[in-house]
Amino acid sequence: MDIRKLVKPNIRSLRAYHAKEIPCMVKLDANESPYGFRALKSVETNRYPDPQSKSLRELIAKDSKVKPENILCGNGSDELIYYLVTTFGGPVLYPVPTFSMYGIISQALNQKKIEIPLDGNFDLDIEKMLQSINRYRPKLIFLSSPNNPTGNRFSTDRILEVIRSSSSPVTSHPSLVVVDEAYQPFSGKNEFLPLLGKFKNLVIMRTLSKIGLAALRLGYLTANNEIIGHVNRVRLPFNVNSLSQAVAIDALKNKKQLRSNIASVISERKRLFNAMKKIGAVTPYPSDANFILFKVMQADSIYSSLLKKGILVRNLSEVIDGCLRVTVGTPGENNLFLKTLKQVL
Amino acid sequence: MDIRKLVKPNIRSLRAYHAKEIPCMVKLDANESPYGFRALKSVETNRYPDPQSKSLRELIAKDSKVKPENILCGNGSDELIYYLVTTFGGPVLYPVPTFSMYGIISQALNQKKIEIPLDGNFDLDIEKMLQSINRYRPKLIFLSSPNNPTGNRFSTDRILEVIRSSSSPVTSHPSLVVVDEAYQPFSGKNEFLPLLGKFKNLVIMRTLSKIGLAALRLGYLTANNEIIGHVNRVRLPFNVNSLSQAVAIDALKNKKQLRSNIASVISERKRLFNAMKKIGAVTPYPSDANFILFKVMQADSIYSSLLKKGILVRNLSEVIDGCLRVTVGTPGENNLFLKTLKQVL
Repeated sequence: MDIRKLVKPNIRSLRAYHAKEIPCMVKLDANESPYGFRALKSVETNRYPDPQSKSLRELIAKDSKVKPENILCGNGSDELIYYLVTTFGGPVLYPVPTFSMYGIISQALNQKKIEIPLDGNFDLDIEKMLQSINRYRPKLIFLSSPNNPTGNRFSTDRILEVIRSSSSPVTSHPSLVVVDEAYQPFSGKNEFLPLLGKFKNLVIMRTLSKIGLAALRLGYLTANNEIIGHVNRVRLPFNVNSLSQAVAIDALKNKKQLRSNIASVISERKRLFNAMKKIGAVTPYPSDANFILFKVMQADSIYSSLLKKGILVRNLSEVIDGCLRVTVGTPGENNLFLKTLKQVL
Repeated sequence: MDIRKLVKPNIRSLRAYHAKEIPCMVKLDANESPYGFRALKSVETNRYPDPQSKSLRELIAKDSKVKPENILCGNGSDELIYYLVTTFGGPVLYPVPTFSMYGIISQALNQKKIEIPLDGNFDLDIEKMLQSINRYRPKLIFLSSPNNPTGNRFSTDRILEVIRSSSSPVTSHPSLVVVDEAYQPFSGKNEFLPLLGKFKNLVIMRTLSKIGLAALRLGYLTANNEIIGHVNRVRLPFNVNSLSQAVAIDALKNKKQLRSNIASVISERKRLFNAMKKIGAVTPYPSDANFILFKVMQADSIYSSLLKKGILVRNLSEVIDGCLRVTVGTPGENNLFLKTLKQVL
């Protein structure tokens, strides 16, 4: 498969912006101020960030058992979606309901969107997916798994079928398949990262936003270095700021706290799910993520009543009939949510 | 003038992504982690940033004597250029040599670039500019003033002529004129911000990167609220991270230090310029920015010799024959640069 054929012509002739990093004693090349401010101890606020996020990419690569050149960092996954659509263009295909930014960004960049409804179990409707892939020849396919807002992972077999159908050597119109694993840390599964070597058209997208670092805006792509190289052409040279790089490095070097927080969310998710199931008027859906989708009668009024009592959940009733989505909080927050939910029902 | 006509059709039907901020006691709507990390004291790392950069925009608006709805913050000016080209499209016209990102981003987004060489004084070649505006009907015109890498401001009259020529009510093809004032703090001039009310097609772009906060990646547009509203449609909802917002707010609340650092750079620029002039083999060009462009014989070899002695400047000889660019540093750094330059000449 020729990845280059997937790249938009205007991008092919673009070179990645190379912000040079030249070791020196006196740095007078970059029109920075010589005077910095106090902020994070390790950060010189007056200097531009490391344009390659080198230390951060090395840490992520080591964790993911890939090379740093297989990693590209972004100002949140949102920016990475922007870059992917800019680099490869459309049509952009994804199941719905799913993360809204695939559609919003495709429209912003004027690319055709193809939305395929999930089946009755919130799984991929594989027949319709394959038909549409064949018919529309999408350049990009986004699969959020675990999926936001439904919470479930899509069947491994079906994801694999999508990847295979668009990477076979006889396919003259390959697609990149971006498996968006924003919620992967809560699923206990790591099935697709090991397949990067096998499928040249596979891209994994992850983020630090759900594991305690949403303030930083740090997402990353993992893919073969040809894909990373193409996306790098449209990446802005200093897209990840120094403060976020520094805090992310600090957090990833102390993974113990991250891991223990993730474990706590997973165990609270189980407790919350079981408690919600026991409430008669609530149908929670099984979740591999850090949230639970649940169905109630009169979702809008339950949403408002919860909010009146200070509990903010997400009202998804316009997207999935009668459904609300609750993020798993601390044990105390979850208890308060459960107690209040029972009150307002 | 109908700004809407300037907006690309796919953007017109796009709504700005509205990341809701709903006051509550228990926040379980956004799939954040309930557990944060230590970073900046005021920042909860587990929560998403303020999607509107509200406090920051209020501070900037007050400083600029405009309303917060006239301000849009970006992950550096680079991102704002991306958004402007995404929103309005091309052709994109700018004088050269200038800041390289106008061209790079236009190509990444597949928009036609029109480059008009500056005149012999590094000023706008107004005749050619007006001819090209008339001929190509650009959607966007970027004017970096003070200009990087030449250091000078363009004539006020010529900038005004460009703005007027593309905003007259009889022009059926208006252009947005983006005056990129990244280096404005060092120019002592503030001529265009007060004209925003007069010219509906004027956009001012500024940044905190040159005044001691490059690590943050914080640029901002100032324009009428119709333009800001259109650009907001393509802005990613959490494009400015929480750490950068917090440090920027802190710095802008303590403007004394910012001002004194700017004053020091301006006074050092004068001293550096005069000292360089006295060296026979060096021609420094007058600067309104925080750097000085200078011409030498054998620029490449002077550049390398300086670097061997630990002094990093920017080699621009491929862009402007025989020219290097030195950023104004601390008095000590400037002395070391001057001493070393004399040695290597």
